Parts: sequence; C-alpha cells; structure tokens
Amino acid sequence: MSSTASRTTRIVLASRPDGAPTVDNFRTEVVDLPSLGHGDVLVRTVYLSLDPYMRGRMSTAKSYAPPVELGEVMVGGTVGQVVESRHRDLEVGDYVLAGAGWQSHAVLDATTVRRLDPEAAPLSTALGVLGMPGFTAYAGMRKIGQPQHGETVVVAAATGPVGSAVGQIAKLNGARAVGIAGGPDKCRALIDDFGFDVALDHRDPDFAANLAAAAPRGIDVYFENVGGHVADAVLPLLNRYARVPVCGLVAQYNGVESDRRDRLPAFFSQILVKSLTVRGFIQSEFAAELSADFLREATQWVRTGKLRYREDIVDGLENAPSAFLGLLEGKNFGKLLIRVAPET
Amino acid sequence: MSSTASRTTRIVLASRPDGAPTVDNFRTEVVDLPSLGHGDVLVRTVYLSLDPYMRGRMSTAKSYAPPVELGEVMVGGTVGQVVESRHRDLEVGDYVLAGAGWQSHAVLDATTVRRLDPEAAPLSTALGVLGMPGFTAYAGMRKIGQPQHGETVVVAAATGPVGSAVGQIAKLNGARAVGIAGGPDKCRALIDDFGFDVALDHRDPDFAANLAAAAPRGIDVYFENVGGHVADAVLPLLNRYARVPVCGLVAQYNGVESDRRDRLPAFFSQILVKSLTVRGFIQSEFAAELSADFLREATQWVRTGKLRYREDIVDGLENAPSAFLGLLEGKNFGKLLIRVAPET
Repeated sequence: MSSTASRTTRIVLASRPDGAPTVDNFRTEVVDLPSLGHGDVLVRTVYLSLDPYMRGRMSTAKSYAPPVELGEVMVGGTVGQVVESRHRDLEVGDYVLAGAGWQSHAVLDATTVRRLDPEAAPLSTALGVLGMPGFTAYAGMRKIGQPQHGETVVVAAATGPVGSAVGQIAKLNGARAVGIAGGPDKCRALIDDFGFDVALDHRDPDFAANLAAAAPRGIDVYFENVGGHVADAVLPLLNRYARVPVCGLVAQYNGVESDRRDRLPAFFSQILVKSLTVRGFIQSEFAAELSADFLREATQWVRTGKLRYREDIVDGLENAPSAFLGLLEGKNFGKLLIRVAPET
Repeated sequence: MSSTASRTTRIVLASRPDGAPTVDNFRTEVVDLPSLGHGDVLVRTVYLSLDPYMRGRMSTAKSYAPPVELGEVMVGGTVGQVVESRHRDLEVGDYVLAGAGWQSHAVLDATTVRRLDPEAAPLSTALGVLGMPGFTAYAGMRKIGQPQHGETVVVAAATGPVGSAVGQIAKLNGARAVGIAGGPDKCRALIDDFGFDVALDHRDPDFAANLAAAAPRGIDVYFENVGGHVADAVLPLLNRYARVPVCGLVAQYNGVESDRRDRLPAFFSQILVKSLTVRGFIQSEFAAELSADFLREATQWVRTGKLRYREDIVDGLENAPSAFLGLLEGKNFGKLLIRVAPET
C-alpha cells in the first residue's frame, strides 16, 4: 500500500479574516506528501473536528498558540486510519487520534498520534465527548468550577460538546444544571437528551428575566464558553464565592461592538464584593494531571449512559469551511465533525 | 472606675455620599452608654483604624457586608483599654483589639475582643502590619498570589499597609517586587524602607512605559488593591498563568468615568488567552485557616526586621472624617490611624 496515497487534498488559510471569516479565507489544494521517514505513519483522515478555537488561529492576535501561517493547512484534531507505517507500534488498519488538520491524508510522526480502540467507544467520540471538548468540560469543572451538591451551574452553548458535558457533570456532582441554547429544538434536547434541570433560549427577549427565575438561589458556577449577552445576564446573578471557568468566548471572536459604556469597573466590583474566582484555561494545562482520570471516568459514564453526547456530522472535506462558519454562528447542533472518508 | 465614662463621643453617618464623600456626611455626637451586662467590658479607644473598605459601608450598594445605617456610628477596628470589666478573662488596664468604631468609648461583649500583649509588638500594629491589612496581604499572597522564586509581583498603593506587606512577602518568597505609589517621597520609601526592587510613580506621564520596562519578563502576580489607571497599565503585561488577587478598588469607590469604550470583552480575552486567575477576596474568608499562621509568622518577621511598616498617625477623633477623605485620595503615607487617646 505504500504508493496508494502520495497526495493529500487539503484546505489552507488563504487570507486572514477582517471581522467574521468567509469561505474566501480558505483555499483547497491537492499537494504531494513527503515520503515516510523512519518512525512515520501515513494516515487517511476519517473525521475532522471543527472547534471554535480555530477562529483564533486564523488571526495574528497574541494568543496561547501561534496562528496558522498563510498558505498552511488549517489545524484540527482528526481520527484517521493508518495506511502505511514505519513505526513498529502501529499497523496498517489501526485507527488513531491525530492532529492532521483539514486534509485527507497526512504523514505524521507516530509518537504524535494515539491508537484508538474501536471497540471501546465509537471512533468519533475521540474528538468530542471523550476528546478535547469533553476533557475541557471535565477539567474545567474539576479544577475550577468544583460544583457542590445543591449548587446551581449555568452553561451556554449547552447542546455543544463542552456545554452538554458540563451540564451532565454538574448533575453527576449533585448540582442543578441550567442550560442555555438557541431555539426550541436545542432547548428540548437539553431536557430530554442531556437531563438539564432548566433549558433557556438566549434568543427570548425575556432571557435575562428567565435566567433570574431559573436561578432563584443565584448562580454558583458559570462555565463561560461563549461570552456576549449571555454573560451579561449571568454576572449579576453570581453568588458569593462563585466560580467562572473561562474556556471560550466564541460570541466575541469576530469582534465586538465598541460603543458600549465601559463595564470593566463594574465587573471588578463584582469580583471584589462577591469574592468571585474568574479563571481562564486551556484544557492542555491539565492534561498531564487529569487525562488518565478523564478517559477512565468518562468512558465509563458514556458506557453507562450517564454522559450522553450528540454529533452533527457533515460529509465531505470540501464542506469544512462553510460548516465552520456555521459553528461560529451557533448553527451546529451537537459536536460538529466532518466525515472526510468512511470509517472502513 | 465604674462611673467614670458613662458617655461616648462618637462619629455617626449623617448622610450617604453621592460620589466622593465630604465631611458633611459625618456628624459628631456625645451620647450615654448602656450599663454593662454580665460578660461586657467598657473600653476606651486608643487607636482607631481608617481603611478604604469603610467607603463601601457608607453606601447601600450590595456588598459583602451590610451598610452603616444613617445615624449609626461608623464602623472601624480599634485598639482600646479596658476601664471596667464584667468578664473574668479581662481586667481593668488590659489592652484589647476590638471593633468599637469611630468613638471614644464602647460597651462591648468581651467575647468579641482579643487581648493584646503590649510587650509582643507596639499596640498600633494590631491594626496594621499585624492586623487586618497585614493579614489581607498575607492571605492574598498565600492563597491566591502564590509568588514563586524569580517571578515578578506588582502592587499599587505600595506604601500603604497592604501594599507594603505584599511587596515584602514577595521578597520573602524570592520574587521581584515592583511597587507603585504617588510621588517621589513614597517611591523613595518603597526602596529604602520596604526593600522593593523597583518603585514607580503612577503620576508620571510615562508610567505605563516605565512599568513595562520594570517588568521585562512580564508580571506574574498583580495584587489589585486600587483599580483605575494602574490596572490599565498592568493588564497587558500579565504573563500566562498570572494571578490577580483583588482585595480593593479604592480608585473607583467614588464612581468612575462612564464614557470610555467597553473594556470588558478585551479583559475576558486576556483571561482566556493567558489563563489568568482573577480572584476577589475579603481577608475574613481565610481567617479560620490562616490567622494563627499569620500571627506567628508575621510577628516573627516584624521582630527580625523582615517585615517593616510605616504608620501615619493623626491625633484626635474629631479629625477622623478629614483623614478618611484624604485616605481615599491617597494622601496618607503608611497605615492611617487616629490616636483617639494616649496609650496610658
């Protein structure tokens, strides 16, 4: 099989967005792959994960990770299958978790991939509930949110892979879970599929009042993964000693209105008078400490139905740009994945 | 001595400030004291502590403590001497730490006061370096700031009782201490008296640039006790995983300009991309856990000269209102105390 796939179809960053990205910021190419060196594997991509953090990588603004260079393949987590191996621990046919990015094939250092057991859980979960988004929820709740029995936990984008796990982990800790999503279908899924206690539609004109009614004893944990007007409604309801893990701000990634009055002094006042903890984090910070715990616990929860998940699978790498733009607008319903090729 | 002081001279809250307080918000009265019940002590005030948190108690805005009611005596920590006792553990002549407020005498439940050993340290230190301000610095650094060897710690109002302790605790932990104060005399004291590595005048037009130069490797801990334009200069310099204990915001207690652009989204972006920890706290949260450690360690540091302090003592209870207004403007130089009466 060593000569079957010497080329890859890939999507590169063609230009940097000014405000909201468009499909014109991306370009599809077909290029030759390098030959395999010792220790390398050739992997065909099965699933590509699309995640909000990718918006940050399109820009040069200082962040926790360097930007994608113009002309380079867009970054992204992938599940793939080994089609050629020059590493003794991986065989042709093995499935692996990798970071091959937005492309159909890649030559990768075998030490950068992790073999997946397709019997343990569906392969796609390695990019969602049992992958980076699930771990973001797990680590953020365990290290920062620390929900206590009877407390109230609020999370937005709650049908997404992070939010849905946050709500279910809140419940597993005996807390109340209030989920926020856009539209009646997503709100119904929060209750019926994920077991939230309350579901609120942030598009409702009475959203702020509804949130106050849903949290009569205030909010103890606000898991911040969207920002924007949801945060505006949450902040006044935070209780003393409330915790605010901040893992994403998708609502403001494309820029924010600048003509509002300055809310920073009032926010600092809230931090002070309520002894708030506001803590930004990237899941990788806690990987060494917690990823083994996570995989053991979360896999068990998934198997026993205590941690449910929903996927929004789009077929075809060529649809990745438009699907990604929809993600930034909240159009996906569950973990957004591109099925680049069939599993087998 | 049971009938020597049946009256107290006290300063009450006459009206609530609209913006910056004025002396007209206070009123002096002479009133009769109640007779002592079983377990009570009559205490004459020697020192009254004036602290920024008192500004919050003058207003009805929701806070961590209820406001002072109109017509009620202003709250405040005091060092006093027992002049009459109906509690077996306290004798006439004993010195005590109490919360008698802005008044010359008070009848207090003896269980609410703590006896002081005048041989262990100067009595006034129980309101400063060995009291609430010192403990604020100690607890905030130990629980939140957690300065590591070689890190850079920045604190404003650095000649004040909290800031000066923060800088010295930073040094005791092997960190660099950058102190910010107003004017050349205070800046000189930061270096000569308190051992800061760098002293910066926040009134300097080049303050932001000077701060950047003083922290070439960024800022790891910003102990926030003032807010305002100092914070503006600090925030862009924070390092990944920086910690921001927030114990006071005196610069914005009297209201803030509202015509600035909204800085909250940018602040949340900084929290996210730098994995910042921003944590409000009131020292009382940590009293049960840490106050014994603090008294043992800090008393030893004071005795051995590792923890120095400076006091700004104003004579006469009648001068408390004007001294307090000066405190809000940064006019004090060291821990502000009113000497209500001589020690003996």
